[in-house]
Amino acid sequence: MKDLFWIAAIALLGLWSSTPARAEDEAMPAASNVPGAQSPGIHADRRITFSLKAPDATSLQVAGGDGLGMGPFPMTKGTDGTWSVTTPPSVPGFHYYWFVLNGVAVNDPASETYFGYGKETSGIEVPEAGTDFYAIQKVPHGEVRAKLYLSKTTGEWRRAFVYTPPGYDEHSSTRYPVLILQHGSGEDETGWTRQGRAQFILDNLIAAGKARPMIVVMDRGYALRPGAAPPSGGSSAWLQNLRLAFTSFEDVVIRDLIPVIDASYRTIPDREHRAMAGLSMGGMQTLFIALQHLDLFAYIGSFSGPIVPSLTAGNLTADSNPEPFDSKTAYGGAFADPSTFNQRVKLLWLGVGSAESDQFRSGIGGAVAALRKAGVRLEYFESSGTAHEWQTWRRDLNDFAPRLFR
Amino acid sequence: MKDLFWIAAIALLGLWSSTPARAEDEAMPAASNVPGAQSPGIHADRRITFSLKAPDATSLQVAGGDGLGMGPFPMTKGTDGTWSVTTPPSVPGFHYYWFVLNGVAVNDPASETYFGYGKETSGIEVPEAGTDFYAIQKVPHGEVRAKLYLSKTTGEWRRAFVYTPPGYDEHSSTRYPVLILQHGSGEDETGWTRQGRAQFILDNLIAAGKARPMIVVMDRGYALRPGAAPPSGGSSAWLQNLRLAFTSFEDVVIRDLIPVIDASYRTIPDREHRAMAGLSMGGMQTLFIALQHLDLFAYIGSFSGPIVPSLTAGNLTADSNPEPFDSKTAYGGAFADPSTFNQRVKLLWLGVGSAESDQFRSGIGGAVAALRKAGVRLEYFESSGTAHEWQTWRRDLNDFAPRLFR
Repeated sequence: MKDLFWIAAIALLGLWSSTPARAEDEAMPAASNVPGAQSPGIHADRRITFSLKAPDATSLQVAGGDGLGMGPFPMTKGTDGTWSVTTPPSVPGFHYYWFVLNGVAVNDPASETYFGYGKETSGIEVPEAGTDFYAIQKVPHGEVRAKLYLSKTTGEWRRAFVYTPPGYDEHSSTRYPVLILQHGSGEDETGWTRQGRAQFILDNLIAAGKARPMIVVMDRGYALRPGAAPPSGGSSAWLQNLRLAFTSFEDVVIRDLIPVIDASYRTIPDREHRAMAGLSMGGMQTLFIALQHLDLFAYIGSFSGPIVPSLTAGNLTADSNPEPFDSKTAYGGAFADPSTFNQRVKLLWLGVGSAESDQFRSGIGGAVAALRKAGVRLEYFESSGTAHEWQTWRRDLNDFAPRLFR
Repeated sequence: MKDLFWIAAIALLGLWSSTPARAEDEAMPAASNVPGAQSPGIHADRRITFSLKAPDATSLQVAGGDGLGMGPFPMTKGTDGTWSVTTPPSVPGFHYYWFVLNGVAVNDPASETYFGYGKETSGIEVPEAGTDFYAIQKVPHGEVRAKLYLSKTTGEWRRAFVYTPPGYDEHSSTRYPVLILQHGSGEDETGWTRQGRAQFILDNLIAAGKARPMIVVMDRGYALRPGAAPPSGGSSAWLQNLRLAFTSFEDVVIRDLIPVIDASYRTIPDREHRAMAGLSMGGMQTLFIALQHLDLFAYIGSFSGPIVPSLTAGNLTADSNPEPFDSKTAYGGAFADPSTFNQRVKLLWLGVGSAESDQFRSGIGGAVAALRKAGVRLEYFESSGTAHEWQTWRRDLNDFAPRLFR
């Protein structure tokens, strides 16, 4: 039987390894590494050292999200067959990354993976000095629950994650407002809790008395009607299909998700206690859905969401020239009467990272300027120094959530 | 703004792709593929075709868990740079696998990943004809909740997953029995719901009236005391450290987890309504912990758990020759008085897969024979044709859970 111990011990080895003493400049293992993995390591100045043992590889690079810098970074092979590279200082926050091993994009076996780019992708968590709003702190913690529901829209079982705030089970007669919070393109319903750390942001805000205890619902932003062909075809077909896909997801949210959540949890089931927000594609979906259903939503947030003024249910043809933003006609005329809008919508919140591409910044900035000029009340938040990445959206949520249900 | 649509559309492409008509022998995409991925594909006879586009690779293989067969399987490069291989028919169920790309073990970008071998690892779900006990069926579904708790034993926040049965929130005065269910070595607290599909097995058993509604707690089977060095050193040190690690986890279960669960959920907090079970290392841990704490557990299950009769808190030296199994002395004498044991322990359940290695089968079979000969009442279950893999443990849970709390 001794051999069995070895089986267990050897497999266990991957989970624990000793942490040697470090010199001043040595890199610390990223919190996103699998337990015991020393690489990737982050230096005090946020340079990152990536390494991979690959004696038989003939080319190896590391590449990744905006915040990593201007990669791909070629790696250099050491005498023991381990390739490595140290990148320039990265932006703080969460960055997707991958190795390119003899031309194939592969994950880092030393890192946790996260659903992004339509597949499991390595990610690295680069700490931001002095920032703990998304850390696991010694405060009461809510739960994140996997909720299955059968969608009438798609005919399939779907999974949403539902954050219930601290005390939800104990205060069994308290009812709570609801925030529906959507991920971006290529991501899924796991994004806001894994990459976004939304549950810890809410735990910390609620513990500090900065946000009202609320239920947060994180659904999967993709939906197809039974028998519907998935998006395919040429360029204009794509645009049309994307819109059609949005209408399917709209039906999921309006006809399936909201009724299921209101029936399953102790919600306050009215528009004054229901918000929707999302990042990137999820922001597009939020503006598309919530602005058409102001009877259901009084709080609306778009985090780095591309502004597409013509994206309404009544207009499913391709955009010719949606800019400049015309507040009279945008989003089916939702803002045409600013005083009515201001009365109905308790919060319209738009944000972007200052390091995002000009397309995002000018599109969102243009809409903000036009809406303000027309007298539409809104909050605008710019995340300093961060790109089209999760650190922007964590900060967005941290600014957005305290403004809800007041 | 049209370009922004392209950003979204291109990223979305990874999540949807059209499904062409198939010839008779064509492979169907595995359910464990990321959405839209056609490879790996499973043939009707359970041969599996793996493929990867890697024009610049010079060697590529696929390898994986026992149920895949006798790999690694060398892959062949096609004219378009895509390498592929079709394996012999595999065992049904869930199999870990990976590519070996120019000598480096990497995940399949087309597959979901699962925590195994101490890291994220690709997995393939091979359907078993006529088997739906772990499928998502049209029945009421419980929730799986991520529960954080601060461990006094380790000084750190830990995460357990907690399955609450259908109706838990509605029947707000009902109390439920609890099963603590542990993963294997190299896996983590996500294993039983992701690889094991424990929540669907319970949903289906409960819907059919075959199992009593229960809470299932799936914790992380690793624990170190504050400042404790992780296991390291030579062979005998490993064995000692493994035992020490088990005592840390024992303290987590007894002093931290059970009190937290009983305080947070509507449990029936007595031994007659508390069970512990686990697979492989988790089975070792179950026997180690539960047999020492029969004041807390009346139901005990070890799924393919190596039998280590000398593994007790009082004996932390290396085993010299723990076989043959002596029912008088094994596990600190827990079975020394069979009639007392039979009176106290409502269920002792041991199982193994018929295709597991001789070490597992003879160790578990020897203990079963010795215990039965001594008059210890137990249930023994052999999973036909399955190896040291999740299909064995899914079947184990499906047999074990109905016997609990009766």
